Amino acid sequence: MSKIVPVIMCGGSGTRLWPRSRKARPKPFLPLLGNTTLFSQTLARCSDPAMFASPIVVAGAAHGEHIRESLPDDGVMIVEPEGRNTAPAIALAAARLPSDAIMLVCPSDHHIRDGAAFCETVADAAELARRDYLVAIGIRPTGPETGFGYIERGDEISPGHAIRRFVEKPDLERAKQFLDDGNFSWNGGIFVFRAGVYLDELRKFRPDMAELVTKAVAEGREEGDSFHPAAEPFCRIDGDSIDYAVMENTQSAATVLADMGWSDIGNWKALLDEQERDGDGNVVRGRGDLVDCRNVYVDSDGPRVSVIGLEDVVVVVDGNDIVITTIDGAQKVGKLPGALDQ
Amino acid sequence: MSKIVPVIMCGGSGTRLWPRSRKARPKPFLPLLGNTTLFSQTLARCSDPAMFASPIVVAGAAHGEHIRESLPDDGVMIVEPEGRNTAPAIALAAARLPSDAIMLVCPSDHHIRDGAAFCETVADAAELARRDYLVAIGIRPTGPETGFGYIERGDEISPGHAIRRFVEKPDLERAKQFLDDGNFSWNGGIFVFRAGVYLDELRKFRPDMAELVTKAVAEGREEGDSFHPAAEPFCRIDGDSIDYAVMENTQSAATVLADMGWSDIGNWKALLDEQERDGDGNVVRGRGDLVDCRNVYVDSDGPRVSVIGLEDVVVVVDGNDIVITTIDGAQKVGKLPGALDQ
Repeated sequence: MSKIVPVIMCGGSGTRLWPRSRKARPKPFLPLLGNTTLFSQTLARCSDPAMFASPIVVAGAAHGEHIRESLPDDGVMIVEPEGRNTAPAIALAAARLPSDAIMLVCPSDHHIRDGAAFCETVADAAELARRDYLVAIGIRPTGPETGFGYIERGDEISPGHAIRRFVEKPDLERAKQFLDDGNFSWNGGIFVFRAGVYLDELRKFRPDMAELVTKAVAEGREEGDSFHPAAEPFCRIDGDSIDYAVMENTQSAATVLADMGWSDIGNWKALLDEQERDGDGNVVRGRGDLVDCRNVYVDSDGPRVSVIGLEDVVVVVDGNDIVITTIDGAQKVGKLPGALDQ
Repeated sequence: MSKIVPVIMCGGSGTRLWPRSRKARPKPFLPLLGNTTLFSQTLARCSDPAMFASPIVVAGAAHGEHIRESLPDDGVMIVEPEGRNTAPAIALAAARLPSDAIMLVCPSDHHIRDGAAFCETVADAAELARRDYLVAIGIRPTGPETGFGYIERGDEISPGHAIRRFVEKPDLERAKQFLDDGNFSWNGGIFVFRAGVYLDELRKFRPDMAELVTKAVAEGREEGDSFHPAAEPFCRIDGDSIDYAVMENTQSAATVLADMGWSDIGNWKALLDEQERDGDGNVVRGRGDLVDCRNVYVDSDGPRVSVIGLEDVVVVVDGNDIVITTIDGAQKVGKLPGALDQ
């Protein structure tokens, strides 16, 4: 059986975990959990040679250095001339692969606690992909989250299900209904399919995009371990996400349900949820002295942070920026003047 | 009528307003309120030449530079060889003055909003001092503070009262009783008396101390605008406060009641209480962005501080130290490892 090709997407501008995450070093390239970056943890998850082929990383030129710090020798990089969202980025990788290759598309800035469960889920998804399904991995929801898209499961297609529909980020009431219904999962942006099947569907639903990607690849050039698609056609693409461009249109969408301790680490609250705490629920990274504190997260790149009497608060010190937010306010970090100014 | 001689005491190690206040630059020498330091504000309060003579500053050598930045040309400094608490420090100044000189002894790290009321109070106190009373200025209490000593008023001695007794820092219940009683005021550490009367009383109650001070002054040397008492006798003094050594023992204690917007700026809460706030009760000194905050005080010496969702919190950034405390926790700042380590 052919091995699965990990296609790792490095996009995003990184304002929600500001000031630690910055344009120059966004979330995938930070050691937010443990001592390694989310990007290298993503690579490590897809590194079993019995199951996976060499990885392909799709990213902008700006992050080439960060990527090379972690990319194994047999990994390659596809350098997007400009960001055009996920549908064209994935198409670049697909166009560089044999048409029957099974791709595992995954973001590089998520955290997955249970690597074994991840591999089992991917193996199930690959089984469906070999039968020419386009598989979106569904995350079993643990709460009525309003920040994620949802996938509603349809008929069983063992070892997964057909997708009845994709649902945009719901409001809280609908999110609660989805949770009660039991037939909904979160769309974690992880996909498994054959390269050729994806390109065929893209050609069907976004023919212009497919054509410009084909042209950008045909006119591209290799440089060491990197492939540079031609900028002129690629930049003319009207960008779109894989969800909108392909998954919501195709008749071959399937899903496999995953229980793997997934988090998108979408803000400081989400990061705190994934951390090991002390007996008072506190976490200190760097120098911190906590007095009468509960559920306080301190992450300092240098200065000594002394905190007295706070509860449910996140403190992040990065260079010349300090953010102090209630856990409930963490979702507003990306809108702070400092996050927008960078 | 002879002018009053301001005797300004600069002692204290400065842990309660850490990290802004540090051993090397304690509270008197910081522009905590407005653009000038508490020390220069203290000098300015006693600068009316119709009422006051040239000031005498009693301080350790460590702060000479800070003192000279603000001391007027006609001011002089008495350099304590080592800190021995207030009784000997005041005696040094008294011993350098004519015995009938009226001294106004005041700390250099308090804030007084109403300078005119201060001068009126001092004038009243001086009237009693000319009748050989030792006058402690009593601050009209504005709450049941447990951090101050209290003065109970006795019989009227116009324009003040005799002192019935001094009371140590009370617990909350007693502090409330004092407030209800109406006959108690805070001991703000501001005293007015004749130099000779103070020295006579010191000789009576602390003869060893008085003798060693006399010796230190006799063997001292002048150097420019500074007087250096001899270290050997001075350092042998068993240090004590003016309250314990003299005021609680003398039969000539009197008090004058002051309503002058006094604060000892004893911690970050006290400082916040003296600040002008915006409509949400917030104060930002330096670079700060406050979102959904109420009664938040941010004081940064450089870094941008972004705060979301907090209430009743003080944030202070000074060099490599950051303190974040609830207002209620502000009194614990002095016990932080960072404050003790400096």
